[in-house]
Amino acid sequence: MGFEDSLPDSLPDFPPDCLATLTINLGTLIRNYKSCIQLAGDTECAGVVKADAYGMGITHVAPALFHKANCRIFFVANLAEAIKLRRILPDTVIYVLNGVFSGHEGYFIKNNLRPVLNDLTQTALWQAVSPENRPACAIHFDTGINRLGLSPKETTQFINDVSARKGLDISLIMSHLACSDDPDNPMNAQQLADFKAITRNFPDIPASLANSGGILLGPDYYFDLVRPGILMYGGNPSKGAMPKNIKVPFQILGKILQIRTVDAGQSVGYGATWTAKQSRHIATINIGYGDGYPQMFNNCGWVCIKGVKVPVVGRVSMDMITVDVTDLYPQKIDPECDVELLGPHITLEMASEVSTLSQYEILTGVRERYQRIYI
Amino acid sequence: MGFEDSLPDSLPDFPPDCLATLTINLGTLIRNYKSCIQLAGDTECAGVVKADAYGMGITHVAPALFHKANCRIFFVANLAEAIKLRRILPDTVIYVLNGVFSGHEGYFIKNNLRPVLNDLTQTALWQAVSPENRPACAIHFDTGINRLGLSPKETTQFINDVSARKGLDISLIMSHLACSDDPDNPMNAQQLADFKAITRNFPDIPASLANSGGILLGPDYYFDLVRPGILMYGGNPSKGAMPKNIKVPFQILGKILQIRTVDAGQSVGYGATWTAKQSRHIATINIGYGDGYPQMFNNCGWVCIKGVKVPVVGRVSMDMITVDVTDLYPQKIDPECDVELLGPHITLEMASEVSTLSQYEILTGVRERYQRIYI
Repeated sequence: MGFEDSLPDSLPDFPPDCLATLTINLGTLIRNYKSCIQLAGDTECAGVVKADAYGMGITHVAPALFHKANCRIFFVANLAEAIKLRRILPDTVIYVLNGVFSGHEGYFIKNNLRPVLNDLTQTALWQAVSPENRPACAIHFDTGINRLGLSPKETTQFINDVSARKGLDISLIMSHLACSDDPDNPMNAQQLADFKAITRNFPDIPASLANSGGILLGPDYYFDLVRPGILMYGGNPSKGAMPKNIKVPFQILGKILQIRTVDAGQSVGYGATWTAKQSRHIATINIGYGDGYPQMFNNCGWVCIKGVKVPVVGRVSMDMITVDVTDLYPQKIDPECDVELLGPHITLEMASEVSTLSQYEILTGVRERYQRIYI
Repeated sequence: MGFEDSLPDSLPDFPPDCLATLTINLGTLIRNYKSCIQLAGDTECAGVVKADAYGMGITHVAPALFHKANCRIFFVANLAEAIKLRRILPDTVIYVLNGVFSGHEGYFIKNNLRPVLNDLTQTALWQAVSPENRPACAIHFDTGINRLGLSPKETTQFINDVSARKGLDISLIMSHLACSDDPDNPMNAQQLADFKAITRNFPDIPASLANSGGILLGPDYYFDLVRPGILMYGGNPSKGAMPKNIKVPFQILGKILQIRTVDAGQSVGYGATWTAKQSRHIATINIGYGDGYPQMFNNCGWVCIKGVKVPVVGRVSMDMITVDVTDLYPQKIDPECDVELLGPHITLEMASEVSTLSQYEILTGVRERYQRIYI
């Protein structure tokens, strides 16, 4: 293309300011992790980095935890995530929560990955692997979430039948809480009692029960290892108050594409779901559900501009939202203003409350279209 | 690591079957695109590929449209998407819907991108660029969605004041419908009338109004170019019946991690939101909201196994869902079964109806954790 050749080549490929940004403060995330250790009374603390570190980026989060906070045990969901993590951190313990499936044993061996064995088919599969190079494994006993893990019947069999666990190098026994967000739910105590009873059969093997919510349930739930996820990422796993030392480690900032005046009686956005009762000033922001800003924020979300919260009006579009900036217009707003959609001012807790979405889903929903900045 | 060195190196990096898959049938997508042209009475048809081609992957979708369907006009949301697309397709028209911002002009020139100018600030900015290498532009007139585009006041000024458009090489004038999903909404006719009035001032410039929904509103809405998005990707933009020739071009398949028996009175998943009234068989599937399967499917989604629809029970987890497979157990189900979460059997329309989420959001929500397969 002669056209292109005639132009200067000095421009970088992309302008630095053409996208909405997701800034992740690894220092804050590390401090959150250390606060989790403190909250758990210095119990050893794993790093849960499944689902691309809850959307925050495993390639940045995992090395920060390893090098800056001495985290030496990581949990991921599946084998692909584990292999990716192994390339990043050659010398750490990695547990794969989904367990091992037939034909995948060699990948666990080659990458030195520990499967979390979830039923007697998986334990038998792992027993059948030659022990020479076989990594250790965890055993997941289900105590009531009925999702993954040995059922009560299988648990009894695994405990009573020596052949069911013969030869296995078990480095961890674990279970998972179903209702740890609610300290008053009797299921917590039931799961705790059931798991405690199981651990008595494995006195020399480290045990783990608590996710983030479990940490906040108190010392009975700590055992030998806690597995914080959402707390590390700045979310509150509990219906109770957020622990003081947990801070939001990320910020999503959009840009103003346009500011327009909407007259009384005019509607905004798809479906005309919001109508101005009087003349209003509406800013269009370059973030939409295509970036992971859900339509559950239609007509109920909030963004923050120069410290002032302003409401989302109309439906969230694929690539934009519209917000009512009348209170800021015209002196306190200009096209250069950053617009926080999620972060220290619009926290996961606040966003969850207005949208009814879970903090977990809002957090892990952040998409790849953001320009990511790690600080 | 001597440990690793001692192992055979013959394994590929990842096993081919350790992830849930998103299969995209480019042939079906192309047929949908051609059906859109037919529906629009052979009006020229652009390809809307913003938000990574609605989540389906711009690097595959755009070349297929260009090479297999002769699509020569593409729309993206922002400059970064446009630059990416330009690298894939050096010789096609690319419009950037967000328009151009100060400091970005050089990137439009260098990459031969056409901005969709949305206000008089943008038209003035583009006028100020030396016309020598300046690409053509589109003008977006807002006719009521109040999101982007010249306001009625700006439109009047742009039409009446020759200096406001002096020197601009306008290749397209356009507007965007707010309520095209609802054929009975009077706003459609109003926007049509307003846009028609505008086009009379630009008799020699091609005009475009219809998105997918607009195509289904009929010939009055076609003008010179239609811009189908969701129809191409197998979604229904209208409250009316889906056009016959539009097929779902993708399929999301999960794998069964475990099948367990849950006794009467036992609950499943976080928050114990589902309780078995009688003994049930529950399969845990390796897809969750971390993959973009929203929690709005909690206790109301459906999946398809061997042609049979079975319900999601309990909450969607980050990495898993649980489904009730009692009707299939044990003869009709085994751990090797594929589980369709979205595709030809569980269509966007069906998924939207049970979840109340828009088809657009469900579609563009698909995440990067899926193994993507293009056929």
